[in-house]
Amino acid sequence: MKFEDPNDTICALSTPQGNGAIALIRLSGKQAINIVNKIFSRELSDKQSHTAHFGSIKQNEQVLDEVLVTIFRNPHSFTGEDLVEIGCHGSVYIQSEILKLLLAQGARMAGPGEFSLRAFINGKMDLSQTEAVADLIASRSAASHKIAMHQMRGGFSKEISELRQELMNFASLIELELDFSEEDVEFADRTQLNDLLDKVKTKVSSLLKSFRYGNALKNGVPVAIVGAPNAGKSTLLNALLNEDKAIVSDIAGTTRDVIEDTMIIDGIEFRFIDTAGIRETKDKIESEGIRKAFDKIKTARIILLLFDTEGSSEQEIIDQISLFEKRSVLPGQKLICLFNKADRIDKEKLLSLKDVGLFISAKRGDELDELKSILVDQIKTGDEQFDTVVTNIRHFEILQKCDSSIEKIKQGLEMNIPGDLLAMDIRETMDLLGEITGEISSDELLGNIFANFCIGK
Amino acid sequence: MKFEDPNDTICALSTPQGNGAIALIRLSGKQAINIVNKIFSRELSDKQSHTAHFGSIKQNEQVLDEVLVTIFRNPHSFTGEDLVEIGCHGSVYIQSEILKLLLAQGARMAGPGEFSLRAFINGKMDLSQTEAVADLIASRSAASHKIAMHQMRGGFSKEISELRQELMNFASLIELELDFSEEDVEFADRTQLNDLLDKVKTKVSSLLKSFRYGNALKNGVPVAIVGAPNAGKSTLLNALLNEDKAIVSDIAGTTRDVIEDTMIIDGIEFRFIDTAGIRETKDKIESEGIRKAFDKIKTARIILLLFDTEGSSEQEIIDQISLFEKRSVLPGQKLICLFNKADRIDKEKLLSLKDVGLFISAKRGDELDELKSILVDQIKTGDEQFDTVVTNIRHFEILQKCDSSIEKIKQGLEMNIPGDLLAMDIRETMDLLGEITGEISSDELLGNIFANFCIGK
Repeated sequence: MKFEDPNDTICALSTPQGNGAIALIRLSGKQAINIVNKIFSRELSDKQSHTAHFGSIKQNEQVLDEVLVTIFRNPHSFTGEDLVEIGCHGSVYIQSEILKLLLAQGARMAGPGEFSLRAFINGKMDLSQTEAVADLIASRSAASHKIAMHQMRGGFSKEISELRQELMNFASLIELELDFSEEDVEFADRTQLNDLLDKVKTKVSSLLKSFRYGNALKNGVPVAIVGAPNAGKSTLLNALLNEDKAIVSDIAGTTRDVIEDTMIIDGIEFRFIDTAGIRETKDKIESEGIRKAFDKIKTARIILLLFDTEGSSEQEIIDQISLFEKRSVLPGQKLICLFNKADRIDKEKLLSLKDVGLFISAKRGDELDELKSILVDQIKTGDEQFDTVVTNIRHFEILQKCDSSIEKIKQGLEMNIPGDLLAMDIRETMDLLGEITGEISSDELLGNIFANFCIGK
Repeated sequence: MKFEDPNDTICALSTPQGNGAIALIRLSGKQAINIVNKIFSRELSDKQSHTAHFGSIKQNEQVLDEVLVTIFRNPHSFTGEDLVEIGCHGSVYIQSEILKLLLAQGARMAGPGEFSLRAFINGKMDLSQTEAVADLIASRSAASHKIAMHQMRGGFSKEISELRQELMNFASLIELELDFSEEDVEFADRTQLNDLLDKVKTKVSSLLKSFRYGNALKNGVPVAIVGAPNAGKSTLLNALLNEDKAIVSDIAGTTRDVIEDTMIIDGIEFRFIDTAGIRETKDKIESEGIRKAFDKIKTARIILLLFDTEGSSEQEIIDQISLFEKRSVLPGQKLICLFNKADRIDKEKLLSLKDVGLFISAKRGDELDELKSILVDQIKTGDEQFDTVVTNIRHFEILQKCDSSIEKIKQGLEMNIPGDLLAMDIRETMDLLGEITGEISSDELLGNIFANFCIGK
């Protein structure tokens, strides 16, 4: 990705798509105030930063909308540039007509994340902080919010920068030795360096480990609900969500699409995947649904395997569980067996299943609270508690490279390689850490990062 | 509906639901600034109206979000009260946590339209203007926007108020006569009154007539696409919308739900209704779909009756059209016959159909532009051009009552009824007109109106 001209004045809708009472359109850049001035009923050029002005937007001599315009003068804005917010009535039509007027006056549509990119370029935030803004916006639970806020306020950057600084000190000392190479002095204590490397490696390992946990918290813990047709999958999903999102029908095979829904239990988001009933079928649409279901099961972290206990014997169920475990459960996935329609059966007959799973009634709501607490426990106890949690795949990949890079330095130290090579290896690790905070960046790197942002941020 | 205490400070999310870069939360009422002050990192009590302040919102000693707070002091706000806007990061989690904090500090959630209600109560807008705000927000096309903006800026209210004022003058003169009843004078010229009544009646009739047009423009012109399975209804809808919104499949009977979609042609919104193929079926889900389809056809203003010309003879098609016209086309509905798959047939064989409808190919896109212009013509030429267009069902119903009420005055005049009775009848019409602008209002009336508003407005 090539960046568009950073001297352009950019504009975008910053509030969610759709109708609402109010929508916000933002402009940033040298011409932001001038451009709005041309279509607004009141003079803005002499107005102070951080003031709001009520007036109307004109289009072909007609009033397009009555709006509130707030102006921010550089550097006192999110982007560090002149910035204008137009609060208009939240009609999709009005939003798009105002944007068209702004474009006609010389603004251009902002690319994804271009406001944040400018905040980064103008030194308002480092790279991992701007990435945290995107995570913050996407956060749906207390857990994911906490991680993103920690990162946005610079907690993660600070740790990374400190490690980087310590490595830089060593690299400088080693490079200093090179100037005195005739004299065979050693400014950089190799034992201390080794200790530092161990410290960095421990930190990096801990961050790497936190990713699996962080990623689940950020994107929601994927939970697949699996079972034969009519085992009650949709009913269970609805009971959990307390809503009627899946079409519940008496006709077997009704749930043809993979429906996803989420709920937050105890601050942790779970992403439920309701799947088509798994059975042999000749129905073209339905067999497509079953293939999709198996694909989805692979992505789950927790699988709820649901049985209609009414129609099956103890042995049949146990056989099916072991078959499913063998064929469909991947390492790292947690299988929870649920024996549904427990209100209709004599539990005494199925006593041995008690140790294998949970008797529930999706219809009556029996034991659903117990199920919820089992789900939460899977996350809370399955992972250690981390100070800083990595949730960003880019950071994760850089940290993986760091891990190998540190290993290389350590091997070099052991083999007593020359100082210039050692310094080069240290700089490699430093550069990697710098890519996280953006101290080291390239247009390509920035392009990749901001391309994933939403427009208007 | 009973109103909640108007002295409360109310709060609500004012931007659309969902994630976006930014969300706006509004508070209005005496305590608005105080309440935000308690959870905001900076002192607001001494800040001027129309100023914006960057800072953070605290929750349990942690930073919940970094936000922009804009304050408006009464009477210089939308509601005429102290009003605060909090621009936060557009995470659903953050939005709801901020609202919780505001509630904990003594605000309460605003009811639907409660901000607008306060604007009305505080004399910022009349009733039909606040109703226009809701229409403005919902406007999706140039046509519906223009009508709502005209009304919001008081165009409609002005006409109604003027008529009302003229009626009031007459009523006053007649009531004055009563004071001089011994003397048998006539201050109010009966001929002039009759002329005025004719003028009011003509205006009311024109407004009533405009409703059918206005309602279609406001809500989108409903267009049903009807035809046998596999006639190509989904393909046509997709071709018109240029998108793949309906599942197109080779299996007959795939479109089981009534899918609605809209497009704007020439500033007019059309709301397409794709219906399940109409045929005899034993499939439970599908027959449900067919019943729904017939219900939907009744609500359409235009019906596109689609034929698979490939498989049918000229006579079969003509018979089916006349059967459909007899059974399913209601008065006022416009039927347009479309002969699909025209790319695959020899049009010479079906020559007589040329006068009955349009040969198209939904797949290849043949004649779709022609179809679009036929649709637009149905609206543009089917209705007269109106100065003021009524789009609101409440206004329409009041105007209907006005119409009868004026007739009653006219009859009274003719029968030369006593002045006091005549004045009473005139006041009845005046009160009705006053209900449109809110000069006459009751809690019940207001309750009904604002209950249909969105929260946050």
